[in-house]
Amino acid sequence: MGKITKVSPLAPEAFPRLPVIEGVTFSAAQAGVRYQGRTDVMLARLAPGTTMAGVFTRSATRSAPVLDCQAKIALDSDAGAAIIVNSGNSNAFTGKNGVVSTRAVTQAVAETLGLPETRVFSSSTGVIGEPLPHERITAKLTELAGSLDKGAISAAARAIMTTDTFPKGAAAEIEIDGKTIKIAGIAKGSGMIAPDMATMLVYIFTDAAADRADLQAMLSDLTDVTFNCITVDSDTSTSDTLLLAATGASGVRVGRDTTAFRDALHDVMLDLAHQVVRDGEGATKFVEVAVTGAASDADAKTHGMAIANSPLIKTAIAGEDPNWGRVVMAIGKSGAAADRDLLTIRFGDLLVAENGWVSPSYDEGKAAAYMKGEYLRISVDLGLGQGKCTVWTCDLTHGYIDINADYRS
Amino acid sequence: MGKITKVSPLAPEAFPRLPVIEGVTFSAAQAGVRYQGRTDVMLARLAPGTTMAGVFTRSATRSAPVLDCQAKIALDSDAGAAIIVNSGNSNAFTGKNGVVSTRAVTQAVAETLGLPETRVFSSSTGVIGEPLPHERITAKLTELAGSLDKGAISAAARAIMTTDTFPKGAAAEIEIDGKTIKIAGIAKGSGMIAPDMATMLVYIFTDAAADRADLQAMLSDLTDVTFNCITVDSDTSTSDTLLLAATGASGVRVGRDTTAFRDALHDVMLDLAHQVVRDGEGATKFVEVAVTGAASDADAKTHGMAIANSPLIKTAIAGEDPNWGRVVMAIGKSGAAADRDLLTIRFGDLLVAENGWVSPSYDEGKAAAYMKGEYLRISVDLGLGQGKCTVWTCDLTHGYIDINADYRS
Repeated sequence: MGKITKVSPLAPEAFPRLPVIEGVTFSAAQAGVRYQGRTDVMLARLAPGTTMAGVFTRSATRSAPVLDCQAKIALDSDAGAAIIVNSGNSNAFTGKNGVVSTRAVTQAVAETLGLPETRVFSSSTGVIGEPLPHERITAKLTELAGSLDKGAISAAARAIMTTDTFPKGAAAEIEIDGKTIKIAGIAKGSGMIAPDMATMLVYIFTDAAADRADLQAMLSDLTDVTFNCITVDSDTSTSDTLLLAATGASGVRVGRDTTAFRDALHDVMLDLAHQVVRDGEGATKFVEVAVTGAASDADAKTHGMAIANSPLIKTAIAGEDPNWGRVVMAIGKSGAAADRDLLTIRFGDLLVAENGWVSPSYDEGKAAAYMKGEYLRISVDLGLGQGKCTVWTCDLTHGYIDINADYRS
Repeated sequence: MGKITKVSPLAPEAFPRLPVIEGVTFSAAQAGVRYQGRTDVMLARLAPGTTMAGVFTRSATRSAPVLDCQAKIALDSDAGAAIIVNSGNSNAFTGKNGVVSTRAVTQAVAETLGLPETRVFSSSTGVIGEPLPHERITAKLTELAGSLDKGAISAAARAIMTTDTFPKGAAAEIEIDGKTIKIAGIAKGSGMIAPDMATMLVYIFTDAAADRADLQAMLSDLTDVTFNCITVDSDTSTSDTLLLAATGASGVRVGRDTTAFRDALHDVMLDLAHQVVRDGEGATKFVEVAVTGAASDADAKTHGMAIANSPLIKTAIAGEDPNWGRVVMAIGKSGAAADRDLLTIRFGDLLVAENGWVSPSYDEGKAAAYMKGEYLRISVDLGLGQGKCTVWTCDLTHGYIDINADYRS
């Protein structure tokens, strides 16, 4: 993946102040896995009693750490847990060596922290197909374990960055029965973003108490309407991992019907997903594509993703061209049900096309002015049914080519 | 679509010498539909007894001329035929006006040439969603009819160009029973290339005699392994049209089992399809992706297209980076069957990866040197079965962004 360039113009003004989640501590270190002069390993330790849930890429070539996490995530345990993540090398397509490296890291973490190995979850992100120098990571474990700190989540967010131009964090606090539940999450991701089950790497922590099955059900449902609804470039990572850890330290138990918790978790996940798009490689525009009136929700998503992944639409957006003809093209090619003469297309609040042709009220000057904004909304109504879906993407610019045409940057 | 730029570095040295096909005459004119100072309308007249076959885009938002051709193509007639094509405006998503414009043009051609209207096939290519100024085309019909000429096929090829940087033509001659059959074809296409049933616009002429059903069967079969196996940018046109006209002037009748004719037609179609890729917007490399050992031919095509459409692979190729990790990524995301540990990947003759990891013989220097070539071959063996498919694409460069981020160029 590409070199780290200047900060995305769509970046938030600053990394948010994330609340301390009781039961979790963090640390970061410079292991020199690939990058020099920056942190590249994070460790998170979860207190005994923590419940874990996770979703992972469905890629047929997913990485050794993903396979290892998938094998462990469905096991119940009260022993606590740890999450260890390195950037710079994805340990994907590394054959038997990948399994050896993953075990070397998780075993060493288990020994250092006094945990069963089945409770150590690892992720690796970065270049595909090169052996992971796991000894550089294990050499830092004493330092990492010795510096674990409740307040170090932002250092963890920085250590997992690859082509990201800013660290990504989001949080929520809710009251249930007079007690406060806190949620804090971090993510990384910028290119190779078309999540299949999750996004690149996301770690969310809460002090709520929850059963594993409930936590997993909520996480899977919410992933479908957050991380699975973003795309930067239609390419799906071999490393996508989303882990949610509930420490229970708040003393408040939540279930899949605890709407306030579910909504707050949704907001944190959507915020992180949007930050990934806002850090899309080369992005200069954040684009919401809202599809309604489709024959089904699945059809709506197919249309939305056809629009959000179309290179011709994404380059037109980069050029601030209200080229709605290309939106018509994308709907036509998507394969989902559409009737040309029932389509309604809007850019922002501007009615662009209806009844199979450009709207009589369409004003090219107004549309062109709208396209100059950084936050754009394309809405399409199919006029066929009740299916709907909203997806998010960014434009396709020279910056994307610069970042990705570099020789194995 | 974008402005016409300098000629693609992958262009053939010259437009080929195409043989005269007895029974067909051509003309071209400057109608000023959108472009100035160049021809933008072509007319082809087919002699009585000509058999027509065609394949068309399956886009749900296909254009008025495509719908009109589809309605006419299955009709039998000995009356002869005509093909009228304009560039600069696709007459797609133009509502009822699109139907009116198409009929205005085909009726006028029918009157001018003394043909039934059902035998006049029209195509329009260019910007989507703007009304077609059909009166500019009909105003030129007397001039077009008056200048019809057996030898003017290259002028026809030039008149149908949009973002194409060179006109595209291909031909073949074969002997059957001591008599010669000739085939000559022209095409246009450069961006919005991910044909679903055909490519942008292709017109092929032969003096063979054939039944309509035989001609249609051959054309549909061969489209699947030629035009339906190319992609420039994964976007599918609303105008894709491929017409094949057999005048019968050679006196030789061919059927779907006439292997020599079928092979020659295949070669002409593949040559034209490759020329479309070689003129891909911004292209600097022509890339063949050969997939073997898949669970089925359909799976092989899914893998091949996932590789050929991956922006990360296409930008790596532009950067001359042998980034085979991204090939692993594309195979993983495609959704077709794959086993990471059975994959074999080659760049040209260089064995890159096997047994789930980089090959022991892999030499990065040799691979990097290979990537400097203009014609590249990526081959993947899945190790699962007998399924195979070869697809063709180009790289993704700054040139693509330049062409398509221009304001409604």
